[in-house]
Amino acid sequence: MRKENLYVIKIGGNIIDDEGRLAAFIASFAGLKGKKVLVHGGGKLATKLAADLQVPQQMIDGRRITDAETLRIITMVYAGLINKTIVAALQKHGANAVGLSGADGDLIRSVKRTHASIDYGFVGDVKKVNGPFLSGLLKGDMTVVVAPVTHNGEGLLLNTNADTIAQEIASEMAQEYAVNLIYSFEKKGVLTDVSNEDSLIPLLTMSLYQQYRREEKIFAGMIPKLDNAFAAIAMGVDKVTIGMAEELEALTEGRTGTILTYE
Amino acid sequence: MRKENLYVIKIGGNIIDDEGRLAAFIASFAGLKGKKVLVHGGGKLATKLAADLQVPQQMIDGRRITDAETLRIITMVYAGLINKTIVAALQKHGANAVGLSGADGDLIRSVKRTHASIDYGFVGDVKKVNGPFLSGLLKGDMTVVVAPVTHNGEGLLLNTNADTIAQEIASEMAQEYAVNLIYSFEKKGVLTDVSNEDSLIPLLTMSLYQQYRREEKIFAGMIPKLDNAFAAIAMGVDKVTIGMAEELEALTEGRTGTILTYE
Repeated sequence: MRKENLYVIKIGGNIIDDEGRLAAFIASFAGLKGKKVLVHGGGKLATKLAADLQVPQQMIDGRRITDAETLRIITMVYAGLINKTIVAALQKHGANAVGLSGADGDLIRSVKRTHASIDYGFVGDVKKVNGPFLSGLLKGDMTVVVAPVTHNGEGLLLNTNADTIAQEIASEMAQEYAVNLIYSFEKKGVLTDVSNEDSLIPLLTMSLYQQYRREEKIFAGMIPKLDNAFAAIAMGVDKVTIGMAEELEALTEGRTGTILTYE
Repeated sequence: MRKENLYVIKIGGNIIDDEGRLAAFIASFAGLKGKKVLVHGGGKLATKLAADLQVPQQMIDGRRITDAETLRIITMVYAGLINKTIVAALQKHGANAVGLSGADGDLIRSVKRTHASIDYGFVGDVKKVNGPFLSGLLKGDMTVVVAPVTHNGEGLLLNTNADTIAQEIASEMAQEYAVNLIYSFEKKGVLTDVSNEDSLIPLLTMSLYQQYRREEKIFAGMIPKLDNAFAAIAMGVDKVTIGMAEELEALTEGRTGTILTYE
């Protein structure tokens, strides 16, 4: 029996920071037929709130060091403001959305990251996605909107990378659904020249990816996203696409963006 | 057939502001047997965040005037920080909690308040509680934690009184469950002398309430809460109790607090 289709779509920070682009994205997302999960990042709102509250922010290799005060800010901005703004907008477009953090319904259990030399603070690495809970909501025709905040089961909320959450959800749901994982952001897809949108790679196989990495043709900031994406394919996700948020419909139809395949 | 029991418990702001008292309350709440919904208020955290962000706050008759900036603050603090902190703590205590705003799953639809002379801003009055959605979560053995933020179905989030939300949820669920509605806060219950905890009214009938109101024996701040409570009884809620958060178990057993009855 053919599995039912499920979209797992990650929407990146730069779109969230732009009210008009976010509204347009939400309208097109709401219009997608079938079951869907939206995972959102945080954008610059948390950084701005931290600045307004004079909470110093420290980044190491593009990762935010999450001290206790920053965790409170992230919980407010990601699980509160951004999540509920998206949910209310989806309701307006007729998609019955429910917004969740990883603590809600024990959706995403994580472990606090330990590292030999860097203290990342309250950062969590995903341990387990609660597939049956998510599946139950989807069967009730709900659209699930996930904020990148997880929990460790011992009362601690943890800041967790949204790209990884999208991949972990896609991988877990691949048992039951034909999952179409889409990373949507402000670029046309994976580019060999980050300043030139015409350098789009339409099809990226695992071996081509490894070759481009050796040749340093892929922008360093894309590498964690691509590692996540290939991990999802290894876990049985049907299809992974990376592309521009404004072209969501074309992305779902494989008409644009970068399509990733194992071979 | 006897209806199954459901607790709808409101936890007041002063408890939320006190980390130790909130932790103790959550532990006792998690220990309650059977199905349960927790509605939380906001406490002083939103006021403090507004002060830190230099967003002036205006109160009229104890109601917060909710301008656009204040709505953002409330959404962050109520639906984000407080809601997820409670959910993570309940998970720790083994209660599988899911935290929702009124926008999530279209749980609480409201209308923006219009008033002849006062512009309350983004304040919503409850129009409809989504009973089947809530019931579905409860049947899945989930504990539902509700933040006092609702939506109007047209993309607008609205600040909504938590006492009223507790009453509206209790009333809606009374069709299916024997609802035990408990307003828990920092006092022993309804007092005839607000400075004397020994002046507790153990049983408050509708006629006694009306008499005390005429005699101005009931603290003005309690009147909206009591009006809500009697409205719930009129809507078929089994039992309404008002009392101290620290005495939650005793409240559920009718051993303390003020019990409200129609006659």
